[in-house]
Amino acid sequence: MSWYYDECSIPSARHRQLARQRQTELTKPPGSLGRLEGIAVDFAGWQANALPALSRIAVRVFAADHGISRRGVSAYPPEVTAQMIANFITGGAAINVLCQAQGADFSVINMGTLNPIPDAPGLHNLQLAAGSEDFSIGPALSQSLLDQCLEAGKAQVDALDCQLFVAGEMGIGNTTAAAALYAAQLGLCGYDVAGRGTGIDDSTLQVKRILIDQALELHASQLDSPLAMLRCLGGLEIAAICGAYLRCGQRGIPVLVDGFIATAAALLAMDINPGLKNWLMAAHRSSESAHGLALDAMNLRPLLDLDLRLGEGSGALVAIPLIRSALQLHSQMATFGEAAISA
Amino acid sequence: MSWYYDECSIPSARHRQLARQRQTELTKPPGSLGRLEGIAVDFAGWQANALPALSRIAVRVFAADHGISRRGVSAYPPEVTAQMIANFITGGAAINVLCQAQGADFSVINMGTLNPIPDAPGLHNLQLAAGSEDFSIGPALSQSLLDQCLEAGKAQVDALDCQLFVAGEMGIGNTTAAAALYAAQLGLCGYDVAGRGTGIDDSTLQVKRILIDQALELHASQLDSPLAMLRCLGGLEIAAICGAYLRCGQRGIPVLVDGFIATAAALLAMDINPGLKNWLMAAHRSSESAHGLALDAMNLRPLLDLDLRLGEGSGALVAIPLIRSALQLHSQMATFGEAAISA
Repeated sequence: MSWYYDECSIPSARHRQLARQRQTELTKPPGSLGRLEGIAVDFAGWQANALPALSRIAVRVFAADHGISRRGVSAYPPEVTAQMIANFITGGAAINVLCQAQGADFSVINMGTLNPIPDAPGLHNLQLAAGSEDFSIGPALSQSLLDQCLEAGKAQVDALDCQLFVAGEMGIGNTTAAAALYAAQLGLCGYDVAGRGTGIDDSTLQVKRILIDQALELHASQLDSPLAMLRCLGGLEIAAICGAYLRCGQRGIPVLVDGFIATAAALLAMDINPGLKNWLMAAHRSSESAHGLALDAMNLRPLLDLDLRLGEGSGALVAIPLIRSALQLHSQMATFGEAAISA
Repeated sequence: MSWYYDECSIPSARHRQLARQRQTELTKPPGSLGRLEGIAVDFAGWQANALPALSRIAVRVFAADHGISRRGVSAYPPEVTAQMIANFITGGAAINVLCQAQGADFSVINMGTLNPIPDAPGLHNLQLAAGSEDFSIGPALSQSLLDQCLEAGKAQVDALDCQLFVAGEMGIGNTTAAAALYAAQLGLCGYDVAGRGTGIDDSTLQVKRILIDQALELHASQLDSPLAMLRCLGGLEIAAICGAYLRCGQRGIPVLVDGFIATAAALLAMDINPGLKNWLMAAHRSSESAHGLALDAMNLRPLLDLDLRLGEGSGALVAIPLIRSALQLHSQMATFGEAAISA
């Protein structure tokens, strides 16, 4: 049996209950902090600590090119994947600004760009392939490459010492791959799942829908498991994120799931190993409409709904202060007893 | 003419346009940061600065008792208003924890508790009356008391040097007053506007609805202006917040509107002086269902929707990190030119 079927950890029910009890004792009407109360309870269970805190956050951005991008599904040429990796390294991207502000540990993994890129500090330059294959004419990944990608995600998480994991992604064409994965997993078609991605026009959107439907037909006989879907329709970075999430569940590291592409990886990972569900929190609902469908199917209620559609992990980083506020309120507010208030 | 009809300031259209232009030059697909882009544009206009920042935040919590609370509309006795003021002063309440974390300047104004409370550092102990009158049998405030309350809110804002203003409130019974104000202003009835407040049961909710309908009938002939609504149905803290918001608009200080009660004050203030609209941002949608109706009527889209219903300004403070993230992204991200990316 492969490593990804190993059991996930179980959050501490005892510490969840202690946190729930404390929430009733704080100087506020019960339930009046809404979803912030549930966040404190979740982190209590995850940290096995009735007074959880969040300081060590790890952000890993997985980048790769996509064969499907040759079919003109993006507003940007594939070279932008490598250019954005350079931007991540020099610190100019959105995710850099947010990681800096939140004190999060950041690095980039080049899973495979169309053309090799030079090594650089802060870059894990794996370059496992020159991007994925065009999934509208054949499988996106070979079985061997899929296994390497899952393993690469696992290896990143095995090296972590953190209290929260965020996976980001960069890859021109990857909303098309993610949309195809949603369609396969949720029984939808191109029309349901394709969105505007980086900002494509009507005719490009139509091409994207048709390519997804073609791919679903081409691979129909093989799409019988989440791993087969990843192999036929996925991408190197999506597979790596899937592997990273699975390892987080096994190691008991909570995951703050970012947007449209990261959630596709989470959806597949949850199907591969359902115990992962206990370690996932959804950061936001993207403006890609199929994202909401997927979050509903996963029974994950996102913290934010701000029409974000950038990826890189950026939506997750924007949500982190909400978690911090929830944990500060939980640990620092006075109780009714301490404040001598008529409860 | 009274001071509150003086014209509001106008945000800088030129700096809004400069910020909008910069957003198109940052290394991301146009629009991909969703509502965060609009926040940066709003603050650019408010600060007349194309690269706005947010450091000086003022939080003022206005507290008062309500005659209507004698009719059993809350899960808590009126003494809790004074007890919570004490909790604010000693730093144990939710708003204290959040202000501390966000570096916000905080103080409390006692507009009028049922019984006088001792002076204390950090407390503006105005005590203009022993709470409002029971509005189900007469006007909540006299004309003179209303004027004093509006003036007290104005005076607080006149003393500020800040880039963002948050008004919080504390007052057992004040969701009933706010609900009555929504009903009067939006043409609704008790059933539409009354919610569970601090957590009341079904029969108390029924009482709350009936009292609101009685009051609407009792005062019907007088509810012909927002100021008349405030006088007949309001409360000391709600009137003070209304005055504070109006002064913010005049001084050009942006307001982050908190929840159900603060929004009732904003709704009335906008009707008194429509130019205020340009200075309001809604922090969150409360779990009180009429709050969403009011935000829609005001065409304010809240930043958060986390089932909060605590008041005190707490929801606004939870939203502040979103603003900070928006401004950091706006000023710190690389442009396409700087990063040499194929835009």
